[in-house]
Amino acid sequence: MAGGLTHLNEKGEAHIVDIGDKAVTRRRAVAQARLVAKVETIAAIMGGSLKKGDALAVARIAGIMAAKKTSELIPLCHPLALTKVVINIDVEDMDAIRIEAIAETTGQTGVEMEALVAASTAALTLYDMAKAIDKAMVITNLMLVEKSGGKSGDFTRL
Amino acid sequence: MAGGLTHLNEKGEAHIVDIGDKAVTRRRAVAQARLVAKVETIAAIMGGSLKKGDALAVARIAGIMAAKKTSELIPLCHPLALTKVVINIDVEDMDAIRIEAIAETTGQTGVEMEALVAASTAALTLYDMAKAIDKAMVITNLMLVEKSGGKSGDFTRL
Amino acid sequence: MAGGLTHLNEKGEAHIVDIGDKAVTRRRAVAQARLVAKVETIAAIMGGSLKKGDALAVARIAGIMAAKKTSELIPLCHPLALTKVVINIDVEDMDAIRIEAIAETTGQTGVEMEALVAASTAALTLYDMAKAIDKAMVITNLMLVEKSGGKSGDFTRL
Amino acid sequence: MAGGLTHLNEKGEAHIVDIGDKAVTRRRAVAQARLVAKVETIAAIMGGSLKKGDALAVARIAGIMAAKKTSELIPLCHPLALTKVVINIDVEDMDAIRIEAIAETTGQTGVEMEALVAASTAALTLYDMAKAIDKAMVITNLMLVEKSGGKSGDFTRL
Amino acid sequence: MAGGLTHLNEKGEAHIVDIGDKAVTRRRAVAQARLVAKVETIAAIMGGSLKKGDALAVARIAGIMAAKKTSELIPLCHPLALTKVVINIDVEDMDAIRIEAIAETTGQTGVEMEALVAASTAALTLYDMAKAIDKAMVITNLMLVEKSGGKSGDFTRL
Amino acid sequence: MAGGLTHLNEKGEAHIVDIGDKAVTRRRAVAQARLVAKVETIAAIMGGSLKKGDALAVARIAGIMAAKKTSELIPLCHPLALTKVVINIDVEDMDAIRIEAIAETTGQTGVEMEALVAASTAALTLYDMAKAIDKAMVITNLMLVEKSGGKSGDFTRL
Repeated sequence: MAGGLTHLNEKGEAHIVDIGDKAVTRRRAVAQARLVAKVETIAAIMGGSLKKGDALAVARIAGIMAAKKTSELIPLCHPLALTKVVINIDVEDMDAIRIEAIAETTGQTGVEMEALVAASTAALTLYDMAKAIDKAMVITNLMLVEKSGGKSGDFTRL
Repeated sequence: MAGGLTHLNEKGEAHIVDIGDKAVTRRRAVAQARLVAKVETIAAIMGGSLKKGDALAVARIAGIMAAKKTSELIPLCHPLALTKVVINIDVEDMDAIRIEAIAETTGQTGVEMEALVAASTAALTLYDMAKAIDKAMVITNLMLVEKSGGKSGDFTRL
Repeated sequence: MAGGLTHLNEKGEAHIVDIGDKAVTRRRAVAQARLVAKVETIAAIMGGSLKKGDALAVARIAGIMAAKKTSELIPLCHPLALTKVVINIDVEDMDAIRIEAIAETTGQTGVEMEALVAASTAALTLYDMAKAIDKAMVITNLMLVEKSGGKSGDFTRL
Repeated sequence: MAGGLTHLNEKGEAHIVDIGDKAVTRRRAVAQARLVAKVETIAAIMGGSLKKGDALAVARIAGIMAAKKTSELIPLCHPLALTKVVINIDVEDMDAIRIEAIAETTGQTGVEMEALVAASTAALTLYDMAKAIDKAMVITNLMLVEKSGGKSGDFTRL
Repeated sequence: MAGGLTHLNEKGEAHIVDIGDKAVTRRRAVAQARLVAKVETIAAIMGGSLKKGDALAVARIAGIMAAKKTSELIPLCHPLALTKVVINIDVEDMDAIRIEAIAETTGQTGVEMEALVAASTAALTLYDMAKAIDKAMVITNLMLVEKSGGKSGDFTRL
Repeated sequence: MAGGLTHLNEKGEAHIVDIGDKAVTRRRAVAQARLVAKVETIAAIMGGSLKKGDALAVARIAGIMAAKKTSELIPLCHPLALTKVVINIDVEDMDAIRIEAIAETTGQTGVEMEALVAASTAALTLYDMAKAIDKAMVITNLMLVEKSGGKSGDFTRL
């Protein structure tokens, strides 16, 4: 371990850390992202004539499929078999959408990265669909909300 | 187009929009993300005993490889052949790292999503490597900084 | 070429055929699939309380994303950059749904396989979502409907 | 669950359903597809001068590799580790080839989609190799043949 | 550029180098690998009862499909659209098989890595199929044989 | 089994062999590759002004990420969840670099191919970064070094 970073050895070289001796437990993580945009952009994504449109479904599917790709994207993540993925998308303020991603597995390592990748990809997919009308949107508050299972203990953002 | 969202047709159904008639031009986009963390976490990632470690290289590679996967992640993105990808990682404040991603192509559509995917993946990779010491890190200010090329005109964040 | 199959050489060995001398032209293909199921299954997928549900959107996105993966799935297909992908899903009979996939590119080879892969993946995704209520569904009439562009001439199914 | 579709919640939103509490059992599925073509096309694929050619091997490998990609293609499929995949390709009639795909795993969810994706991809790969001589081929009877393991009980097509 | 390595900037940081100003030319590369094994292993792979078996076809397909994945495997490779891929597998000596891979494109960058990835993957696939009878096989002479097209000039191994 | 090759059935047809009845055990494999180059090339990769550069980190990450892609590259490999991956890169001679890859899992099949794919991809990534200064580099001695776990017994290269 180098400087506290578990993914680097004492020489600072990256590796996938050994989890072969860790217990198989039920693990869960919840992450979120916030997409801040103009009021009209939020309305275009969430409401009005689009109520029956695919916009939120596309973002949900993107988040779900990205969760399954996490170990291809984050170089030092262990591959794992997700047992559940849920994406919730809600208006938080007139100018902000909140994306929540829930990931679960039964295995030897946690699913924090899967939840974070799902939340950021769903948010970026909303950006992609609305960027023709508003390039200045910002994704913020991309973070872990809670985590349970595994030896390192539970985490809940206060 | 539904409610201004170009990626949905008049019935609100998602599709990959036709770019067959758009001009082939040189296109460039710059995106950024900001990773906010405890002072000690930033130090562990950027400095001290890790100076020669792989931490930043892992994040750079993750961002570069993710840029190449953009059309697999963002459902309605057109596949395109990037001609350049650069990731810059710098300390912005004692408690924040700034990740910048530059993407370029010569083609019929822009590379905003490639730059954004690269920036968010590099930031999430730093999160992954440091999460054992600090689960409360937050990614913020994930946004397009500038964009040029193409008919919709240039964009520069003020 | 072995026995008329262009993808095999005179010894019968598979290869990706040389298209380096073919003209760059606008190319388009339309494929379809038909999902035959019980009347109640079709109703569950297409109508009633699901009218605002994600079912068709999930299938559309699956078809679109699969089209972009065609050269990873069909071993001897050339990689190409799609300029447009559309999936249309409609009730054809009380017991059948018709999936249509349209793919376009500007390049040296056709997009028949992209359209076929999109149609079959969208149909299989509907199967996946409804299989808990009806495992006996059948996909039939998976075929090319029309094709234009390229030296081999246009094709229209009569 | 919306309208009987287990992959949608009560609001009709897609998610990957929770299988964390399901039993780990041995699971098996058999699917098939039928490629209908001109007699000469079937002969070109299956026989004569091609007897030692790669045509069927290419289709078999395509089906096997696609089975391993199922959770990347079907958005709401759980990732799982296949323990066996077999593709059988036989002449069924003078104008039809039958493709059979067998998939097995030991896990918390079934492998119907893996078998179906394998069968359709093998059939589409045969189409790809023969399309220069016969664009009018049709894939039909793509369906589950039998399924065992898991709580929902066994299924055998009569 | 750091120490002559074009893929690193003056600070030693990896990036995908800018090829936006390079000419679009026809490019070709040939690579090879040599699989050295016991005489009986070579016989099992190449001959006798296996003459009509899939062994060489599986290796050819693996090499072809890997060539298309090169930019996913080699972090700093540009994505490109191959116009031709051929894998030739021949007995070189009683105890060695020679694998040759030919790759071509029309683009702004060369296809050396595509040819090398194809040759090594085909060789490793032969290893995989024969490892139950001979784990001591060695892959050697994995190298570029010739290269043409592009500004850096042609290369031919003497 | 055809001619001793377990991956082919009695008719010589490729399939993914059934491992459903094999025991779940701890499995480990070590593979290596040797990159032979001019003395100046080795110096450019390993030393001097590049000491703090990303060159070795890029190769390590490439090897690690390729290990996770093994079942996508080698057609008849079972997918499996790696519990550890380590890549070591060292100067072996003035004109040679040795790449060692270690892979581990707990499962029903071995990880020899994961270790070999990691070693070859790391070596090819070094080739990619240095090819502008030395196209004549050769990868040699790509082979299994040791293997443990599973019924077929341990293997150690003498």
